[in-house]
Amino acid sequence: MAELSFDVAHLGHVEVYTDKFDDSLDFFTRIYGLKLSELTGDSAYLRAWDDYEFHTLKLTRHHTTGVGHIAYRVSSPEALARRVAIIEASPYKVLGWTDGDSGHGPAFRFEDPFGHVFELYWETVVYEPGPDDRPALKNMASRFHAQGACPRRLDHLNLLAEDVSAFRAFMTTCLGSRVTEEIRLDNGRVGGSWFTVNNKSYDLACTEEHGKGHGRFHHVTYATDQREDILRAADVFLENGVHIETGPHKHAIQGTFFLYVWEPAGNRVELANAGARLMLRPDVQTVVWTEAERKKGQAWGLKTIETFHTHGTPPVAVDPE
Amino acid sequence: MAELSFDVAHLGHVEVYTDKFDDSLDFFTRIYGLKLSELTGDSAYLRAWDDYEFHTLKLTRHHTTGVGHIAYRVSSPEALARRVAIIEASPYKVLGWTDGDSGHGPAFRFEDPFGHVFELYWETVVYEPGPDDRPALKNMASRFHAQGACPRRLDHLNLLAEDVSAFRAFMTTCLGSRVTEEIRLDNGRVGGSWFTVNNKSYDLACTEEHGKGHGRFHHVTYATDQREDILRAADVFLENGVHIETGPHKHAIQGTFFLYVWEPAGNRVELANAGARLMLRPDVQTVVWTEAERKKGQAWGLKTIETFHTHGTPPVAVDPE
Amino acid sequence: MAELSFDVAHLGHVEVYTDKFDDSLDFFTRIYGLKLSELTGDSAYLRAWDDYEFHTLKLTRHHTTGVGHIAYRVSSPEALARRVAIIEASPYKVLGWTDGDSGHGPAFRFEDPFGHVFELYWETVVYEPGPDDRPALKNMASRFHAQGACPRRLDHLNLLAEDVSAFRAFMTTCLGSRVTEEIRLDNGRVGGSWFTVNNKSYDLACTEEHGKGHGRFHHVTYATDQREDILRAADVFLENGVHIETGPHKHAIQGTFFLYVWEPAGNRVELANAGARLMLRPDVQTVVWTEAERKKGQAWGLKTIETFHTHGTPPVAVDPE
Amino acid sequence: MAELSFDVAHLGHVEVYTDKFDDSLDFFTRIYGLKLSELTGDSAYLRAWDDYEFHTLKLTRHHTTGVGHIAYRVSSPEALARRVAIIEASPYKVLGWTDGDSGHGPAFRFEDPFGHVFELYWETVVYEPGPDDRPALKNMASRFHAQGACPRRLDHLNLLAEDVSAFRAFMTTCLGSRVTEEIRLDNGRVGGSWFTVNNKSYDLACTEEHGKGHGRFHHVTYATDQREDILRAADVFLENGVHIETGPHKHAIQGTFFLYVWEPAGNRVELANAGARLMLRPDVQTVVWTEAERKKGQAWGLKTIETFHTHGTPPVAVDPE
Repeated sequence: MAELSFDVAHLGHVEVYTDKFDDSLDFFTRIYGLKLSELTGDSAYLRAWDDYEFHTLKLTRHHTTGVGHIAYRVSSPEALARRVAIIEASPYKVLGWTDGDSGHGPAFRFEDPFGHVFELYWETVVYEPGPDDRPALKNMASRFHAQGACPRRLDHLNLLAEDVSAFRAFMTTCLGSRVTEEIRLDNGRVGGSWFTVNNKSYDLACTEEHGKGHGRFHHVTYATDQREDILRAADVFLENGVHIETGPHKHAIQGTFFLYVWEPAGNRVELANAGARLMLRPDVQTVVWTEAERKKGQAWGLKTIETFHTHGTPPVAVDPE
Repeated sequence: MAELSFDVAHLGHVEVYTDKFDDSLDFFTRIYGLKLSELTGDSAYLRAWDDYEFHTLKLTRHHTTGVGHIAYRVSSPEALARRVAIIEASPYKVLGWTDGDSGHGPAFRFEDPFGHVFELYWETVVYEPGPDDRPALKNMASRFHAQGACPRRLDHLNLLAEDVSAFRAFMTTCLGSRVTEEIRLDNGRVGGSWFTVNNKSYDLACTEEHGKGHGRFHHVTYATDQREDILRAADVFLENGVHIETGPHKHAIQGTFFLYVWEPAGNRVELANAGARLMLRPDVQTVVWTEAERKKGQAWGLKTIETFHTHGTPPVAVDPE
Repeated sequence: MAELSFDVAHLGHVEVYTDKFDDSLDFFTRIYGLKLSELTGDSAYLRAWDDYEFHTLKLTRHHTTGVGHIAYRVSSPEALARRVAIIEASPYKVLGWTDGDSGHGPAFRFEDPFGHVFELYWETVVYEPGPDDRPALKNMASRFHAQGACPRRLDHLNLLAEDVSAFRAFMTTCLGSRVTEEIRLDNGRVGGSWFTVNNKSYDLACTEEHGKGHGRFHHVTYATDQREDILRAADVFLENGVHIETGPHKHAIQGTFFLYVWEPAGNRVELANAGARLMLRPDVQTVVWTEAERKKGQAWGLKTIETFHTHGTPPVAVDPE
Repeated sequence: MAELSFDVAHLGHVEVYTDKFDDSLDFFTRIYGLKLSELTGDSAYLRAWDDYEFHTLKLTRHHTTGVGHIAYRVSSPEALARRVAIIEASPYKVLGWTDGDSGHGPAFRFEDPFGHVFELYWETVVYEPGPDDRPALKNMASRFHAQGACPRRLDHLNLLAEDVSAFRAFMTTCLGSRVTEEIRLDNGRVGGSWFTVNNKSYDLACTEEHGKGHGRFHHVTYATDQREDILRAADVFLENGVHIETGPHKHAIQGTFFLYVWEPAGNRVELANAGARLMLRPDVQTVVWTEAERKKGQAWGLKTIETFHTHGTPPVAVDPE
């Protein structure tokens, strides 16, 4: 068994596209409870109150919805060099270096086989709270502002791919990700894979595209401190007319307590709480779920609703919804 | 800045001594809610329901209380070799290899300057639940048995040292631990240090010995999934006549929600919930608390009670309690 | 407006029939977490840990499932006399006085138009905990034993009736109940009514029988202190192979957080938490829900599952399940 | 035993004086999370989001702090007449009828032996939410606005009296209150009494005045749906610089989970959660706590802090703080 790679430290940020920029920004700040670090012409840089970086969500005005790019921060400059060498030697498409963005320095971009753009970076902009945003306790990244759902930090994202096995090869090769859980369908295909680069049990999931789209986005998730925060958030969403798709309930896979909603432009957004669950074990064994096991529904029996399998962003012409 | 070391994967187990073995075992199983993997003549091997290894607590019959040894699991055989070389080259006392124990293979033992015995091991015994202990969800290490306080997994331990700075040097050298938070006293001494080898914000804390003891133990802690589990546990402890020392409340340092009790032999045991807090940032910056800041008490103002500063195990002749 | 009646103090106990007595008793004690006060040849007298009376659930061996009788305690001997006079003067069927039972003194029995047996009583047996069941805090009825789901007290029950309007007339006449919420169907019928005799927002609900049964039982419910207790209970049920029918989720009607399971013989049992919600207002205004409003599902959008409308106990020959 | 009186339905509102009106109003709305129904020259009429009346807290500009008056709503016009007759026949000081206020109709005023002004009223102003305050669920009094601590409803208040026995006689005579719990001191005096007129286990508490004040106020309390709401509120208070006096913890008396803070003018304000605890039993037996039992501290051992015994409003010249 090869030694685990610790080159990639953590999911850094996700760029989400919206064709209803003002409505989406209102949702993410006032209702979902992220904080605005910077607003430029076409993008809002957002973070949860305990995210240590300048931003973990970049919301970008676009002609449609979906994901712009996915960024991971590496563990060191040396780790970045090692990863770049590996990716350049791989069969995957290299997009090359960018100068960085408001929230970080130079980033190395590359693409998965389904058109999702990834980047790796080391130099970052650590968020420094001004007087109004300084927390009462100095070990917090900023003030707990208690606005809306108010999650604590970025947790993970979920992408759609026509071939999850191919996506898995991409993730393990380029990021050194471990596969903690997986769905094996009766037809032999992989229905979904859950990946991590660190002790979180997952930071990215990939599930099979059933809507004939390409390079699509399933959802982005922030973590709350407690399950009660999610029950409370359900009332916040209800009172604000947000479309609650499914939940709150507990996932069978990964055991996460969850709630899914759609932001005004249609991108799916989750709140999740994993309790004290971590993937501390270094010799990770992938937990494999069969199709029969998945048919039991979620942990406490909730059936997975149809849109969860079909709705992704951007919408596609043949979207069966 | 040197690259972070990921050689050590996680805290593996803690051996706790008791001079009231039967009472302590009853506490840890029936009230605290750990599961018994094996009972030998002098030791009980215990684990929380989602600990993946055979044991995370070894409770050993002894003439007094305190800590027997502290074990960390490494990330790979190669990582173990690297760490052994570093420790052997260090000024710290090497005790050498043991053949292992019921729960793991060969372990390399060494000692901190205050007499606490540490060990590193790679080969482990993964807990395999029998039919009665098989969980409903296959991604759990064993059945959620809902007994007593019923924490999910081992979290951390706390040791006492006459010189916390010296202990810090030991931890960063031997384990490659990062220091996430620290108390700097007005006299220039370090009052306490919080260490981690992974994404948990701490897996070991060391605070200054004020009771004239040597090699003493402050507490061991298991993690619950929710804060509510700790409030419920307080009622479990109350109904079972367990001495509640302090809490439930929220630590200022590390922000953990906590509850401290004394098991029947006098060892301090904690339940804790960290919410979604993790140390994902690779370029860790130590958060330093001043003596003035500590005098504000815990996060919501609870004053730290006197025994918390003086009670350790084993008791010492001059113990001021 | 007539003055409210306070003659009836609270729901006292429910007798539930089972054709799998041993399995049902194991469920109610070990998994659901009630305490056994007495076991006679054909009945088990059960109570939650903070129920002040000898029993709130009488589980009785029977050739089928369903409800044996429903008992309310009155506010005083004078109140009992007043109620008996009213019922005797009413068109409802009077069954007359019984000598009482293990848990209470003489009871006056009568019947609703659908065959459900009700009784009123004043003299009761207050539960006196023995040494092993004495609580740490003297204002609790017995020890918090932390067994299974472990609800705090009896909350309410739900009956099926072919004509909910007729049932409503029965309740307001005989018990002086108030109707706090109601479903008005498009066809003009009442689809469901929620009743209370005190400050709880409901202690009995009646919904329309859709399974061609008569005198059937929908469910009995105990209250937990927190919503988290219900999330935890879901895991307890899951690990014990209990059929979870629906939930946890929040009811639109009454706003209660709920979880429904079927005990081994098939009777539906609920756990519920109402938060701080009470019906303090003396001039109660019935909240009326339209059929269109009900079609939105539960509070956060969960669709009501089919069995919830069809499954009652005892089963009927034509039961469409 | 006389029949219970149900003439008085519930605590209606409390008038609190402040000599820092703007700061207090900011606290009660933005941080504590009440809603403003009306602002007149000298008073703000406030309510929690699920209080059905126009106001439950009247905050009034004054030269000092403390309580202006305490109002209970009766069960019917007939009940009001009965109560007025009883009070007029009693030895207590009658202040007579007022025309009412923004939130209710005519009120009958009278005084306890320690100068606290009480009033009873029947005609009330039910709060009717405008378009912006309409809840998503029609059985809620107004929108869950998720602002600050955001309690659900008024719960109780606490008054100081030089002679708690005399106060108890006043409450049982004038309001027909039941005494659910009581502290009996070693000197034979009553140290505190907890009263209720309905199924809540208390709506008013009276504890002994130790600060040489007269007619003083100890605190007013609103109820949250869950204990987690109180833990979250502690962080809200912390971030807003509110003085947290003690808690969160669980009371031994009444078993309520609590948190005490001081609003900017110095009045003590509590948040509390009683779980599913109710006083359903009609033949109430007072639970009596001895001085020795009280010395054990709160439920989980927290010692009652000194200011809790001495701080009341308005402050007195000899206030020992």
